[in-house]
Amino acid sequence: MPRLRAELKSRSYEVLVARGALAELGAGLVPLRPAGHVVVCCDDNVAPLYLETASESLRGAGFGVSHIVIPAGEAQKSLGRATEMYGVLYDRGVRRGDLVVALGGGVIGDLAGFVAATYLRGVGLVQAPTTLLAQVDAAVGGKVGVDFRAGKNYVGAFYQPLLVVADPDALATLPPRELRSGAAEVAKYGFLAGGALLEAVEALAAVADGGTDGLVRGFGEEIIAGCVDEKLAVVARDEREESGERAVLNLGHTIGHAVEAATGFSRYTHGEGVALGLRAVLWLSERLCGLAGADVQRGLRLLDAVGLPLRFRGATIEAVCELTARDKKTGAEGVEFVLLEGFGRPRLRAQVPAGLLEEVVTWLSAR
Amino acid sequence: MPRLRAELKSRSYEVLVARGALAELGAGLVPLRPAGHVVVCCDDNVAPLYLETASESLRGAGFGVSHIVIPAGEAQKSLGRATEMYGVLYDRGVRRGDLVVALGGGVIGDLAGFVAATYLRGVGLVQAPTTLLAQVDAAVGGKVGVDFRAGKNYVGAFYQPLLVVADPDALATLPPRELRSGAAEVAKYGFLAGGALLEAVEALAAVADGGTDGLVRGFGEEIIAGCVDEKLAVVARDEREESGERAVLNLGHTIGHAVEAATGFSRYTHGEGVALGLRAVLWLSERLCGLAGADVQRGLRLLDAVGLPLRFRGATIEAVCELTARDKKTGAEGVEFVLLEGFGRPRLRAQVPAGLLEEVVTWLSAR
Repeated sequence: MPRLRAELKSRSYEVLVARGALAELGAGLVPLRPAGHVVVCCDDNVAPLYLETASESLRGAGFGVSHIVIPAGEAQKSLGRATEMYGVLYDRGVRRGDLVVALGGGVIGDLAGFVAATYLRGVGLVQAPTTLLAQVDAAVGGKVGVDFRAGKNYVGAFYQPLLVVADPDALATLPPRELRSGAAEVAKYGFLAGGALLEAVEALAAVADGGTDGLVRGFGEEIIAGCVDEKLAVVARDEREESGERAVLNLGHTIGHAVEAATGFSRYTHGEGVALGLRAVLWLSERLCGLAGADVQRGLRLLDAVGLPLRFRGATIEAVCELTARDKKTGAEGVEFVLLEGFGRPRLRAQVPAGLLEEVVTWLSAR
Repeated sequence: MPRLRAELKSRSYEVLVARGALAELGAGLVPLRPAGHVVVCCDDNVAPLYLETASESLRGAGFGVSHIVIPAGEAQKSLGRATEMYGVLYDRGVRRGDLVVALGGGVIGDLAGFVAATYLRGVGLVQAPTTLLAQVDAAVGGKVGVDFRAGKNYVGAFYQPLLVVADPDALATLPPRELRSGAAEVAKYGFLAGGALLEAVEALAAVADGGTDGLVRGFGEEIIAGCVDEKLAVVARDEREESGERAVLNLGHTIGHAVEAATGFSRYTHGEGVALGLRAVLWLSERLCGLAGADVQRGLRLLDAVGLPLRFRGATIEAVCELTARDKKTGAEGVEFVLLEGFGRPRLRAQVPAGLLEEVVTWLSAR
């Protein structure tokens, strides 16, 4: 069973990546917190699938267990829902030595993580991600938060869990579109790490070739642990986004997020936005960072094989360009991007002039 | 000018203690954040007194300055008020590189500190305490938060400021009762540190002898810096209350908080509660930790001289005992207290049997 270790300034913890790991949640937790009350938080999609497995494992290890089940969806990531959850913890007499388990995807991890980070100035947090996106990215690294008005994650904290338990078997119940969306973040880690991880992802994508069954079986311990390993290495260098190094994790997110926003966060999933953003990164990197043409083709082929969108629809080129420029440092020399000099060799703070930005967004649009 | 340095795991920062320091706020900040927008938060008591001084200093140093002024009082420490403040930061386009200045007492420090800790996962925070309690205690050490239902500070974070600027001249406008309340925390640090700090506090109290004018002049740089130094030493050993060492700062707070609660948080200020709790600590320490009888008298004399309450009224002995036992670890051996083996020698986790607890509360009550 891959056990990765996050060695961070604020805390060190293990990330367990293993088939069947959800049933071992309680046993994994005992060495860290031998007793106490555990509040398992999940949404109503995940509850019928994995809540009983997780709870039974915790009860079997001697913990008192209770649940918070909320509706599914990004709209739950609100201060209102967080306040309601504080009330539940209050009514149940939760103390600082007790625990919150975030069982589910990115929304639950962010929301329950924020509640755990701030209730009593922080109770114990366990991330138990059940989606591909959460397993390779959201559940690791300590970013938690809720949305505020139009600002995604505008209220939040850096708060590291005591333990992360990622069970690839949980991916079997993931809707195909969510699985493909998670694959976009996997591709991102492949591009960032290069080498063996990129090759493993390519091999999987080639077998799957757009079909979902092969993807589910393929996103096993090796690839998930490889992505987590890459992410932890970055986070360890810049846990709180102070030196700027953590920004490499935004690869593909600059234009990706603008496409999501320009289409009202309803047409594309986050992962689909990232996939479009990664295409733009490959295009720009060839022109600005000397990324080899063969590597551009290699990267695009990988995204094609996973079945992610090739071009965006439903927004104007102008809107995407404007949103790309708005939230980033935009100086006289252009908008700051993370680009690639090669696979495994990201370049931070690459300046993309306005003209080139318009060119790549035009290329990316399905006119 | 005393410049103390907090060397903490999460961050290092300076605490400036100096007469007139508020007018130097901008200059002190430039080396840390050379530019940006600063949102100064204070209540409507402090605004007419010090907001212009602070703002002018910041503008003079090149910062853009705006204000948030809220009503005074503990009731403001709510999630509702925090949410409203997030909205103001959002509307003003505050970014992570911008700053929040908490100008005022403990309520503003906790509330604006919590907002700064969580907006965009943390914007820059400067604590500019204007009350004695905040200067010697609340503004240093990184505890921020709001109240939730009956739970004081039940939603919060550990979030260290970039800078603390404590100006003893601001104490001149403090109501006498608040000044005496702050003196209770000063006495606490005197008891914890012993030696020169305790002697300095005693000398001041002897001169003041219940009068306020002498106290204002006396709580100058030496004593405030001495308390901050003692607090920083404790916080550096246990920043997030993990090892338990930080609990020594609760000296006097166990019974003190119970008296505040039993009288509905309206009869006694926090400092008055602490002063009553410190009396109980002296009484218990003689019986359980071998504190010399002469030291007990010395401690009581100090509290008398500052003009803090000798006995509590308005609550039953039973209510205070029950509230003391409720929120603490209560085992077969009794309730856990911080006590004193001598001045400068606190003892953690001292067990106080139920019978002795009743005895000391009876002694402390004005029957």
